[in-house]
Amino acid sequence: MTREQLIENIKKKKSFLCIGLDTDLDKIPEHFKNTEDPIFAFNKSIIDATKDLAVAFKPNLAFYERHGLQGWKSLERTIDYLPEDIFVIADAKRGDIGNSSSYYATAFFEQLKCDSVTVAPYMGEDSIKPFLSFPGKWAIVLALTSNPGALDFQFIYDKDTPLYQRVIKRIKDWGTIDNTMFVVGATRAEMLSDIRKIIPDHFLLVPGVGAQGGSLKDVAHHGMNSDCGLLVNASRSILYASSGSDFESAARAQAESIQSEMETLLREKNVI
Amino acid sequence: MTREQLIENIKKKKSFLCIGLDTDLDKIPEHFKNTEDPIFAFNKSIIDATKDLAVAFKPNLAFYERHGLQGWKSLERTIDYLPEDIFVIADAKRGDIGNSSSYYATAFFEQLKCDSVTVAPYMGEDSIKPFLSFPGKWAIVLALTSNPGALDFQFIYDKDTPLYQRVIKRIKDWGTIDNTMFVVGATRAEMLSDIRKIIPDHFLLVPGVGAQGGSLKDVAHHGMNSDCGLLVNASRSILYASSGSDFESAARAQAESIQSEMETLLREKNVI
Repeated sequence: MTREQLIENIKKKKSFLCIGLDTDLDKIPEHFKNTEDPIFAFNKSIIDATKDLAVAFKPNLAFYERHGLQGWKSLERTIDYLPEDIFVIADAKRGDIGNSSSYYATAFFEQLKCDSVTVAPYMGEDSIKPFLSFPGKWAIVLALTSNPGALDFQFIYDKDTPLYQRVIKRIKDWGTIDNTMFVVGATRAEMLSDIRKIIPDHFLLVPGVGAQGGSLKDVAHHGMNSDCGLLVNASRSILYASSGSDFESAARAQAESIQSEMETLLREKNVI
Repeated sequence: MTREQLIENIKKKKSFLCIGLDTDLDKIPEHFKNTEDPIFAFNKSIIDATKDLAVAFKPNLAFYERHGLQGWKSLERTIDYLPEDIFVIADAKRGDIGNSSSYYATAFFEQLKCDSVTVAPYMGEDSIKPFLSFPGKWAIVLALTSNPGALDFQFIYDKDTPLYQRVIKRIKDWGTIDNTMFVVGATRAEMLSDIRKIIPDHFLLVPGVGAQGGSLKDVAHHGMNSDCGLLVNASRSILYASSGSDFESAARAQAESIQSEMETLLREKNVI
C-alpha cells in the first residue's frame, strides 16, 4: 500500500487505529477451542467486527510461531482474510545480515503479502536496506519502544543524542517517507515532540495505548502531523474486551470508542 | 543441552565447529530440486556428511521463512533429524516485549526443541529474560556482529564504552554462563580480547569465518578460554563447497579441514 492510499484510508475511515492480532489461545472465548483452527476463527470474528473502524491490522508473529506449523497456517489464513483496504503489519522484529534480511523481506512481502514488517536496528544498514527495495512495501524500524526494557539501551547517550534518536537520524536517510516508518511507544508520548523535529513527515507506529497505559490524546498532541502520520495500535483492550459470547460486540464497542476519539483528534488537527 | 555436555562434546569431537544451515534453493545441487522437500533432503545429506565433525548446527530462519509453510516444515524436519549430541541453534534474532518474547521462547525451545535461539538486545531486559528461564536452554545475544552495518550503532560510545560492550556488561548479569552466550563476529577478532576481560567464562558464537573473511586462528588466539568457550560457525564454505554430485564429500573435506585446525588450536590452548 502506498503512503497516499494509507492517508486516503485514514481520512475515509476517520481513524488511525491499528488492531494488534496478539491472539492467545488461553484468552479467546471457550467455544472457539473445539474448532479446527481456533486462532483463525477468532481473528476472523474480530476482523469482521472491526474492519470498518481500523486502517491497519498487526499480527504479532510470536503468538503464531509458538504453535509451530499450525500457527503459521493460522497466520497465512488471517492475512489472506484481511480486506484490500487494510494496511497489514507483520510484527516480526526481524533483522539480520544483508542476504538473510532479503529473505525475511521475501517471506513477509512476497510469501505472506504483508504491506510492512517491523525490523530491529541493532545490526545497521545492510540489515535494514533489503526491506526498502519493494515498491509499496514498508520497513517499520524499532526506535523507542513501549516496554520497561527500552531504558536499558535506547537511552544510551552519544554526546547529547540518545541511541533511539541516533537510530532515527541515521535510518531516515536510508529510505524515504514512502517506505520507512518508526516504532515509538505511547508510554513515552512526551518524547514525540523531539522525534517530530527530526522526522516531521514520517509515519509512526505507536503501540502502548490501552493495556500498557499510554494516552491517545498525548500521542496525537505531540505526534500528529498534517497527514496524520500516526498508526496507533491497540491489541488486548479490543481482542479481550469480553471473554463471553458478546466478545464481538464488546470488541467493536471498544474499537468504536477509540475511533471516535481519533475522529475528534483528526478534526482538531485539521487532518479531516 | 547443558554447558557441561557441550564442553564434553567439544573435547570428544575435538571441534568447536557450528555448521550454519543457510540452505538456499538457488545454490543446492540440481538433482534435489525435483524431490518432495529439497531443503530437508539437502540438509539431511549435509548433516550425514559432517555430523561427527561439528558440535552445533545453526539453521538460519530467514532461509526457511522465505518459503512460507513449506519452509517451516523443512525446518521442523531438519531439527528433528539432528542427532542428540548436536547443540541446535535457531538463528532467528528474535526479541519483543515480555509476553511476546515468552512465546518466541516457547516456539523455539518447546515447539521446535532447539537448544538455543539468537536474540536481539535493542528492547532490553524484559525482551531477553523470558529466554533465560528454560533449564538447559540458551539465549545467544547479538553483541558485535560480523556485517558492515555493525559499525552504525554497535560502536556508539557512552563515555568510554561502545554499545556492544555495554550490551555485554548489562546482559551478562541477567543470566549466567549456563544459559547466556554472545554473538561476536570473527571479522572483528581483535576485539575478542577486550570482550574476554568482561566475560572470561561465557561461550561466544562466532560467525564470519570462511566466506566472510574472518580468521579461525585469530579468533582462537583472542577468544578461547580453558573450556574452549567458542562455537565458530561456517555456512556457505561448507554447504556449497561443490555444486556438483560430489557436494557431500566436498562439504566433508571442508569441515574436516576446519576441524583439524580446531583440534590443533584446542591442543595449543590445553583444552584437550
